Amino acid sequence: MKVSIVGVTGYSGMELVRYLKNHPFVEIVSIHGHTSANEIIGEVLPHMKHLISLPIEKINSEKIIETSDLVFFATPSGISKEYAPVFIEADFPLIDLSGDLRLKEDGVYEKWYGKPAIDSKWLEEVDYGLAEYRVKPTAKWIANPGCYATATELSLAPLLLHQSIELDSVIVDAKSGLSGAGKNLSPSTHYVQAHDNITLYKMNTHQHIPEIMQQLKIWEPKIPLIQFSASLIPVTRGIFVTTYVKANKQFSDEELVQLYMNCFATNPFVRIQAPNVYPSLKQVIGTNYCDIGIAYNKETNVITIVTVIDNLGKGAAGQAIQNLNIYAGFDEQTGLTVLPVYP
Amino acid sequence: MKVSIVGVTGYSGMELVRYLKNHPFVEIVSIHGHTSANEIIGEVLPHMKHLISLPIEKINSEKIIETSDLVFFATPSGISKEYAPVFIEADFPLIDLSGDLRLKEDGVYEKWYGKPAIDSKWLEEVDYGLAEYRVKPTAKWIANPGCYATATELSLAPLLLHQSIELDSVIVDAKSGLSGAGKNLSPSTHYVQAHDNITLYKMNTHQHIPEIMQQLKIWEPKIPLIQFSASLIPVTRGIFVTTYVKANKQFSDEELVQLYMNCFATNPFVRIQAPNVYPSLKQVIGTNYCDIGIAYNKETNVITIVTVIDNLGKGAAGQAIQNLNIYAGFDEQTGLTVLPVYP
Amino acid sequence: MKVSIVGVTGYSGMELVRYLKNHPFVEIVSIHGHTSANEIIGEVLPHMKHLISLPIEKINSEKIIETSDLVFFATPSGISKEYAPVFIEADFPLIDLSGDLRLKEDGVYEKWYGKPAIDSKWLEEVDYGLAEYRVKPTAKWIANPGCYATATELSLAPLLLHQSIELDSVIVDAKSGLSGAGKNLSPSTHYVQAHDNITLYKMNTHQHIPEIMQQLKIWEPKIPLIQFSASLIPVTRGIFVTTYVKANKQFSDEELVQLYMNCFATNPFVRIQAPNVYPSLKQVIGTNYCDIGIAYNKETNVITIVTVIDNLGKGAAGQAIQNLNIYAGFDEQTGLTVLPVYP
Amino acid sequence: MKVSIVGVTGYSGMELVRYLKNHPFVEIVSIHGHTSANEIIGEVLPHMKHLISLPIEKINSEKIIETSDLVFFATPSGISKEYAPVFIEADFPLIDLSGDLRLKEDGVYEKWYGKPAIDSKWLEEVDYGLAEYRVKPTAKWIANPGCYATATELSLAPLLLHQSIELDSVIVDAKSGLSGAGKNLSPSTHYVQAHDNITLYKMNTHQHIPEIMQQLKIWEPKIPLIQFSASLIPVTRGIFVTTYVKANKQFSDEELVQLYMNCFATNPFVRIQAPNVYPSLKQVIGTNYCDIGIAYNKETNVITIVTVIDNLGKGAAGQAIQNLNIYAGFDEQTGLTVLPVYP
Repeated sequence: MKVSIVGVTGYSGMELVRYLKNHPFVEIVSIHGHTSANEIIGEVLPHMKHLISLPIEKINSEKIIETSDLVFFATPSGISKEYAPVFIEADFPLIDLSGDLRLKEDGVYEKWYGKPAIDSKWLEEVDYGLAEYRVKPTAKWIANPGCYATATELSLAPLLLHQSIELDSVIVDAKSGLSGAGKNLSPSTHYVQAHDNITLYKMNTHQHIPEIMQQLKIWEPKIPLIQFSASLIPVTRGIFVTTYVKANKQFSDEELVQLYMNCFATNPFVRIQAPNVYPSLKQVIGTNYCDIGIAYNKETNVITIVTVIDNLGKGAAGQAIQNLNIYAGFDEQTGLTVLPVYP
Repeated sequence: MKVSIVGVTGYSGMELVRYLKNHPFVEIVSIHGHTSANEIIGEVLPHMKHLISLPIEKINSEKIIETSDLVFFATPSGISKEYAPVFIEADFPLIDLSGDLRLKEDGVYEKWYGKPAIDSKWLEEVDYGLAEYRVKPTAKWIANPGCYATATELSLAPLLLHQSIELDSVIVDAKSGLSGAGKNLSPSTHYVQAHDNITLYKMNTHQHIPEIMQQLKIWEPKIPLIQFSASLIPVTRGIFVTTYVKANKQFSDEELVQLYMNCFATNPFVRIQAPNVYPSLKQVIGTNYCDIGIAYNKETNVITIVTVIDNLGKGAAGQAIQNLNIYAGFDEQTGLTVLPVYP
Repeated sequence: MKVSIVGVTGYSGMELVRYLKNHPFVEIVSIHGHTSANEIIGEVLPHMKHLISLPIEKINSEKIIETSDLVFFATPSGISKEYAPVFIEADFPLIDLSGDLRLKEDGVYEKWYGKPAIDSKWLEEVDYGLAEYRVKPTAKWIANPGCYATATELSLAPLLLHQSIELDSVIVDAKSGLSGAGKNLSPSTHYVQAHDNITLYKMNTHQHIPEIMQQLKIWEPKIPLIQFSASLIPVTRGIFVTTYVKANKQFSDEELVQLYMNCFATNPFVRIQAPNVYPSLKQVIGTNYCDIGIAYNKETNVITIVTVIDNLGKGAAGQAIQNLNIYAGFDEQTGLTVLPVYP
Repeated sequence: MKVSIVGVTGYSGMELVRYLKNHPFVEIVSIHGHTSANEIIGEVLPHMKHLISLPIEKINSEKIIETSDLVFFATPSGISKEYAPVFIEADFPLIDLSGDLRLKEDGVYEKWYGKPAIDSKWLEEVDYGLAEYRVKPTAKWIANPGCYATATELSLAPLLLHQSIELDSVIVDAKSGLSGAGKNLSPSTHYVQAHDNITLYKMNTHQHIPEIMQQLKIWEPKIPLIQFSASLIPVTRGIFVTTYVKANKQFSDEELVQLYMNCFATNPFVRIQAPNVYPSLKQVIGTNYCDIGIAYNKETNVITIVTVIDNLGKGAAGQAIQNLNIYAGFDEQTGLTVLPVYP
């Protein structure tokens, strides 16, 4: 299978290259930048020197369609919505890692992203790519989920699907490493500002909130808006989400762990921790794993769910390749059974 | 005023020395270790070389009482409860930075600290030292609050005192730097383990929970157990607490900020941020400040409070000196008007 | 004494404010930005909220001369050379933390800074402010040394003054935290790039090289160009310089330590470590100290000198205040006897 | 090919597992701890959960010989020298990642490691495993080089082999991440001590010095002891070595780069940077690459060589697998063509 990558010099684009380099059934045939075209990749990205010899090209839809079997867009929001119609019209598969194709409801993208949305007719055939809960696994066009969205949705799926919580009680306290903020320079991503610091940002306005709600409502249409906040922590990679919900009945820790284990029994990338064990961020870095620990506090009746992913792995490139595997009919773990880079 | 410090080689003890070095009315006359006695401080603590010339002595209550006017205990839990009776009996002032003298109710210390408590008769004269809400400001014996407890209590005080929230809705997601875990070596404080990582620890069992509840119940006796969790983040200093509560009425962000500003109007160390501004951890490091930002989400009806302190400042040594100032009748800011070490 | 600060929102400018806040004989009467004029300082710099109430003004030489007794320039290179002539002509004292007034020899500034130099006539009255080796301590105009320059010059002074080394053997391997690169955004100071990384930059072209040579030649006119390199290490503050020289005779570690102790006997801010003790970076952060450890390897005949300073302290604002103290006739330690913020 | 790993819970042992997991021709059949035997690996090392299902066993030479084809020792110094004789006598291949089998000369191990050496008769058949310069590539017993030694030796090989330097001028300033110090708890590896810090350690006494000299003398018997120092920098992984030598003739940067490119033309894991480009640490993390940049300063006549490796990759597990590939007759890149985990 031959693939092209658009946005190869961004963090998610680089990570697609890293995983695909060792995918037995996939070959990268062209790489494209939206700003750094015509440069030599080993000079722009010295870590790839001698490992990748393709030149960075300008985006050329026609050539991609001719020479590849699938295209990844790993671009900032606002790019793929310009190109997606061409590929859809050509019946050419596309996996989009940006937020452009995720939000189905009219007006929502405009409100949260602050720019015009793609015409909704193009979204009809697009499947939301939360790999463990794909609706149309054979879809050719996939909106790969956001990093916070992936971690939050997987945290809540078992409890919502089993009607186990008070619906208006969901609090999500999410922490992310700086690579989640991308390569763009800004005061908040300046080393001196971000190091030894932690900052809550986009209070009540993060663009992953409507994406999360769209998915949660599939599982439980009556759920009202959740309370979600995101803080930047001084690490490069990783998302650490602590979710708090009121249970609607009594549990034991063991029952909760069992509920999650059953729910994800056939999902190799979700690793439920034993009772009284909670994952640390580092144990998933460099991989597509989502590790979840669950605790029940019988005095407050609150369930705490601790979920960790690599924002560039399960939160971006890893899940995109998992979705490629699903689309192409490969085992979903193909090319993804690497160990975390630990410590 | 002459003071002695017990536990000078621990992080809180060092920080007491740092602040007191520039306190105009206080002189440190003796410093004591519980393990490192008889060493020269400039060799044990090279950063103090040439700045402090006192030897580290063994604890000697009699000598302290003879030569000083007040003693600080900056020791791990389990030490000061052995010495406090001697000082109280001698009518000698003591400020304890450990948890030994904080919990008034029978059996609570034993349950959460896992060791025998001091006889409760000694606690009668001890005042809990949350400086902004001292009950007996003239008390000679002060239980200086815990770091998480200080940040959480100040976060919630205005809302509880104004009956503004649903009492069973409090969720506290606290993050702490590694110095909070002290100088003891352990796998979780090993650099390689803690760096680039974040870990939730002591799930539902942190010993600051009963301390927080004791104080919250003073403000609102009907409040049930709150949900509190603590995570270690990869910074040396600082506590970042995000608190979520359901409001029991509608607010605007401005009203909430005003409520907090009124509440802390006479408290110079609590800096309420403007509406839509949230403090970052770094802006208080090296000081006794507690910075608070507040947001109201009218769709979820949740108030989010973001509170930052330096765990060794307002969370330990800074507040201890604020309490000394209150006790001694100095302006409470004496020796504490230093700027944060920023960046 | 009344002072003004130009460039108050830069890292060195902030640090001047931090130290001067507790200087007993100095009052800051006006603060000036070159880009952020007319803003409220507590909003631009939230850590100063409630601590500094001055507005940030545009630079106004006349008003400064009228209302102050001395002006600090803590601006990037290229600014103070435009303003210095006005102040010198007005016989008004100025301490410049930038590189604009340091290089005396014609053409050198142009070559290393890549921009036109100030007219050399203005440099006649300017004294180079290496505080331990001031030539004209009463000068009204002071070129405060660079951070790397300060650490390197103090490392080598005793050996050059005692003719103890082979002059063509000097190798300086300097490491700096990111605050040394200033507030300007750039790919190399982006958190994701700088964290967990170390990079050698400006190979053989760092603009502190000619400054170092100018000072070394005062001590030893025959010294040829030294080999100097600078690497960025992932910390916010601090300079760690390892200097290697061939001795021109045999030493013992003790003799070398004694040589340094004698040389700096009257310099309170230079702390020579005991034999076989080497300073760690952290032990000077937040202070004006320069800590030096020395080792002699009798098999290679190489002397290794390990020197640490805070680049914003002894490497900038701390030394600037030390120079103000010298100029004003205060004890040179006034306002500077703070302990490091450790850990 | 079936292999066993002794010391699997140490950092190098974990990294062997990570690489071998994706080696197409190697199967790990048993893993052994020297302290953590009889534990389940997914509990001791949560990042391996679901990925490795082997139990951690006690060391059992007989069983290893029966069931495997080769054994790796990734143990602290002092362990493998006890076991090596058994395996050598049984003619069973062994790759030792510790320092126990590296030093050939009598008395040297004792002097630098401070413990008794293995009987020298066992070392006769052991080949030093600097993969690019193996003497006996078919040897069954391999002493895998130390991390500092690998980086230093590769930095100097071209210049020594081409007689290009003044032999008594070599200065090596090496910086290492904390994982190089291993899993043992100590004050210097405590997070609070190591974070935001840099410390020079083992001044003139690092045990890699004799190992480096042994190899350099193979290339240039007349070379005297080099000056080598090692500093800990606040990163988890990586070695950054800056080497300074006096050239014995004039060069251009291009000539030097060409010399290095020629020298390593057939070595895929050594990536020589273009003239005026110097590697940053991050660009090799998670891989077996050694990236080298070279500069010549015609005024000082000093050549500066900047070399980066992952101490757990090319400095330990990566090179060990490269040596296994060489021994087994596989392409030396087998299982090692992974991209760095970047950023």
